[in-house]
Amino acid sequence: MTSVTSLFAPVESDLSQMTDNLKQLVGARHPILYAAAEHLFGAGGKRVRPAIVLLISKATMADSGLKPTHRRLAEITEMIHTASLVHDDVVDEADVRRGVPTVHASFGNRVAVLAGDFLFAQSSWYLANLDNLEVVKLLSQVIMDLAEGEIQQGLNRFESELSIEAYLEKSYYKTASLIANSSKAAGVLSGVSEPVAMNLYNYGRHFGLAFQIVDDLLDFTSSMDALGKPAGSDLQSGNLTAPVLYALEEKPYLNVLIEREFAQETDLEQAIDLVLSSKGIQRSWDLAKHHAQLAAEHLSDLAPSASRQALHTLTEYVLSRGH
Amino acid sequence: MTSVTSLFAPVESDLSQMTDNLKQLVGARHPILYAAAEHLFGAGGKRVRPAIVLLISKATMADSGLKPTHRRLAEITEMIHTASLVHDDVVDEADVRRGVPTVHASFGNRVAVLAGDFLFAQSSWYLANLDNLEVVKLLSQVIMDLAEGEIQQGLNRFESELSIEAYLEKSYYKTASLIANSSKAAGVLSGVSEPVAMNLYNYGRHFGLAFQIVDDLLDFTSSMDALGKPAGSDLQSGNLTAPVLYALEEKPYLNVLIEREFAQETDLEQAIDLVLSSKGIQRSWDLAKHHAQLAAEHLSDLAPSASRQALHTLTEYVLSRGH
Repeated sequence: MTSVTSLFAPVESDLSQMTDNLKQLVGARHPILYAAAEHLFGAGGKRVRPAIVLLISKATMADSGLKPTHRRLAEITEMIHTASLVHDDVVDEADVRRGVPTVHASFGNRVAVLAGDFLFAQSSWYLANLDNLEVVKLLSQVIMDLAEGEIQQGLNRFESELSIEAYLEKSYYKTASLIANSSKAAGVLSGVSEPVAMNLYNYGRHFGLAFQIVDDLLDFTSSMDALGKPAGSDLQSGNLTAPVLYALEEKPYLNVLIEREFAQETDLEQAIDLVLSSKGIQRSWDLAKHHAQLAAEHLSDLAPSASRQALHTLTEYVLSRGH
Repeated sequence: MTSVTSLFAPVESDLSQMTDNLKQLVGARHPILYAAAEHLFGAGGKRVRPAIVLLISKATMADSGLKPTHRRLAEITEMIHTASLVHDDVVDEADVRRGVPTVHASFGNRVAVLAGDFLFAQSSWYLANLDNLEVVKLLSQVIMDLAEGEIQQGLNRFESELSIEAYLEKSYYKTASLIANSSKAAGVLSGVSEPVAMNLYNYGRHFGLAFQIVDDLLDFTSSMDALGKPAGSDLQSGNLTAPVLYALEEKPYLNVLIEREFAQETDLEQAIDLVLSSKGIQRSWDLAKHHAQLAAEHLSDLAPSASRQALHTLTEYVLSRGH
């Protein structure tokens, strides 16, 4: 399988430029945020979200190339994503992400809250200055959805009655909304028609759902080394994902363990084993595959190009992670 | 002296309606935020910022009355202000505000970060849906300035070389920017000309600076009961305000106490006494008065009305607090 880096070849230099800009922007004026910026925009981030924005921008501009507003949109997308990660880590009291300590763990709550607020603030300012009210609306909806997703996740901890539909809704808020709306926004900035814009939105939505389902699967099927965080950590914190919700249908004892919030020493380990030995893993892969295929089908408006090909290959790549 | 409540008479019913809306909005869908909403939008808040927005809106609409967008702008202004307070309390680890425990102290970091993010998110969404790009830009600048102000305050702790100009700049970012830009935005929504809009901006800017200087004075001259927080708490946390900066010019020992960050038991008490016995208090009152007068002078475009009168009386009221 191709690496994600080679997939991004059509926009690789644009992505490097973006990363440098973001480090400068956050770090240059504020020593207090400098270390956080290095940390946030340094090695490790896959930059999937801005890559999709840039690939869609190229694919919808034919030979005219990227506009400055496309590049700015990619930056905004990565800033919003990063801001929400930083605050999520405060809220979840997470100490490790992508195998490195979180901003919250390294620099404390104070810097983490400030850094997140600064990134949200800078992104709304950039957004306003794109001078496109439709794009402002699309991305401010994302900021709302991210807050909604984080709150829903907080409300539904250890809620074993959660339906797959409610899980997908939460996954939309937490992950797919940003990819869907920024994909559409990239098309809007290129001046595509409304039906094409909606197809780009649905590409992003289904890709985002597949991406999140695979992420949730990897929490069970990957090792600590590959994940950069302990396996089963979603389950431990009461965040019930697709593999668990499917497993609950065939393993009633799993419900007992969840209801008592893994109070006894071997509870978590037993619960993980129950999930792994259920059909939940395969059914979740099937669900991810379903959304990845739907994503690919929404690319049919785009003329053939290296960027369109990369967007298509991404829908296969998302399924190959950890398989 | 009139009470602030009677000052707001021309918009009192609009303010009550706004408070009910905000409680509903934040609390209704999310039990996790319900208690926080009661706390945030319950009794205690003076609602100076939305009151100014509503008064300016009425004063610039003559007999036509408030538009729905004016009411929405007032809500946005209060939401942004409240969001920034909630996050400031996390960053400053403050336990008490307006005499009641902070969200951070009552419900923990988790709810405080979520509640702040939710309010910021909701305000950017409302903002985008005002469908006025100029207003979006004005208020997104405010969100940037608030983040900048909080970061500057973090950087300059115990920095006794701080100039009065740098103090005023920080006060603009922290306090005056929101009042200035929302005052201007209220005029923009009424369709005033650019020079009138700039005068409204300057009314808000000078009013905001006077308001902040008086707040900083009250930290020295008021009792715990009146303040709702311990006296001298700005100084204790290294936030050096006008009275301290002026006092430093005549009391060299104050510098020694600040440089060692009040490490010895009686340091803070001594420092407060040095400030109170200096000309810093009077000079700060003069500075506040100067800005309050400048604010009043920027109201001359407005035709006489109860709302205009209230805006004028506010510039006197701001100086009377605690005097």
